Amino acid sequence: MEKLNVFKIGGKVIDQEQLLSAFLTDFSKIEGKKLLIHGGGKIATDVSARLGIKAQMVDGRRVTSKETLDVVLMVYGGLVNKKIVAALQALKVNAIGLTGADLNVIKASRRPAEPVDYGYVGNVEEVNADMLQLLINQDVVPVMSPITHDQQGQIYNTNADTIAAATAGALSKFFDVTLYYCFEKKGVLLDPDKEDSLIKNVDFKYFNELQEQGIVAEGMIPKLQNAFKCLNAGVSNVYICNHQAIGNLKTIGESSTLINL
Amino acid sequence: MEKLNVFKIGGKVIDQEQLLSAFLTDFSKIEGKKLLIHGGGKIATDVSARLGIKAQMVDGRRVTSKETLDVVLMVYGGLVNKKIVAALQALKVNAIGLTGADLNVIKASRRPAEPVDYGYVGNVEEVNADMLQLLINQDVVPVMSPITHDQQGQIYNTNADTIAAATAGALSKFFDVTLYYCFEKKGVLLDPDKEDSLIKNVDFKYFNELQEQGIVAEGMIPKLQNAFKCLNAGVSNVYICNHQAIGNLKTIGESSTLINL
Repeated sequence: MEKLNVFKIGGKVIDQEQLLSAFLTDFSKIEGKKLLIHGGGKIATDVSARLGIKAQMVDGRRVTSKETLDVVLMVYGGLVNKKIVAALQALKVNAIGLTGADLNVIKASRRPAEPVDYGYVGNVEEVNADMLQLLINQDVVPVMSPITHDQQGQIYNTNADTIAAATAGALSKFFDVTLYYCFEKKGVLLDPDKEDSLIKNVDFKYFNELQEQGIVAEGMIPKLQNAFKCLNAGVSNVYICNHQAIGNLKTIGESSTLINL
Repeated sequence: MEKLNVFKIGGKVIDQEQLLSAFLTDFSKIEGKKLLIHGGGKIATDVSARLGIKAQMVDGRRVTSKETLDVVLMVYGGLVNKKIVAALQALKVNAIGLTGADLNVIKASRRPAEPVDYGYVGNVEEVNADMLQLLINQDVVPVMSPITHDQQGQIYNTNADTIAAATAGALSKFFDVTLYYCFEKKGVLLDPDKEDSLIKNVDFKYFNELQEQGIVAEGMIPKLQNAFKCLNAGVSNVYICNHQAIGNLKTIGESSTLINL
């Protein structure tokens, strides 16, 4: 099967124009078939604040109200997504921006209101790999925003890590897929404050040990759970890496964490 | 050649949810290959005002500043476009939302700063009909927002009527294209206050007469100029019609204005 590299970016890389520009330049130089999934970053929070929309929080997590959903759709689906697409087109990458509603690419259902009602947040139900494959085989590069729909007209705010895992998993029907979770740190660290404490390989057994020892926590746990989920779904490799590491994919095994089953 | 119906909507149909919903239901029932282009409506103005962005006007026309461009991209490229796409998916239409940057579908250049600098406003240079045709032949329905790019990373606010004419013209290479300019009135009226003064046919000679007599003016002149431009580019028919008229395309000749060369 032909190789497909799937990259997920989020956080600071989205918020800081220079970091994003550097990432996209590296991304544009990667040969072969590829796909990009971006998260939200802080812009939606800033726009919400400027629009006077009050953040509703439950257990420290943001609730997506109807008004917030509109902002998310504007910022993730419009501003961020299309700026990335235009930048990639300038770098000669034939990008197309997609939400889950476009081509019915990602169908989701509203996250159950129990125990906590997070509002218009979707759980991914199905990725339309056939349509994505059609684009990819025309040398088109899909750029996916963290927005899904229920095929009944409702749009949802959706976690980009989950979209990345589900998309990579579904596309492994057609391609030999490697997924790269790109973020601020080098990878999974033994000591989160020490970049030189990088763990180069994590398998499921080791993940459980790290979790028991409290070494992986918070944001890293769902990322790793997603990684194992998509490895089980047929994805060949998952790397947790720094967004600058993709500048040299040949040495990524040295500079990041490889997740195995 | 296979038939392709291209529809352009704007103004109140975009702003009023019920009108939009009724239009999209009618649109979903139209058989065969089709494409939709939407304008902006007032939402961008409202969002700009709420964000505290001051409207810059020259000669009564809005200037697209850098900040306004971001709003336009959020509202037209995100909010409006994706709500239409999600609504069409619910109506079993396999829609895909596009700006001119996606798949490099519409390349534009910045409108010259003389005599008036309208800011980040683009003039359409080239429509990538090959890519659109590829989607259309997969029974995908492109939904295009009034946003273009220059292929060097710059995004532009662009007139939706012009995009409609250029897109219909370019696609006439592959299809037998009919373009429908849908708006609030029935069509070209002899007396703008009287809906029963509909002119059913306007050719180029008659258009010049109507213009001399001051019967067509303001918004209608560029619409008709666009119509003649795309008829010259190979489009088979152009209708100026009410957004409700598309519910029965068979009688559209009676209920609207047909433009001929």
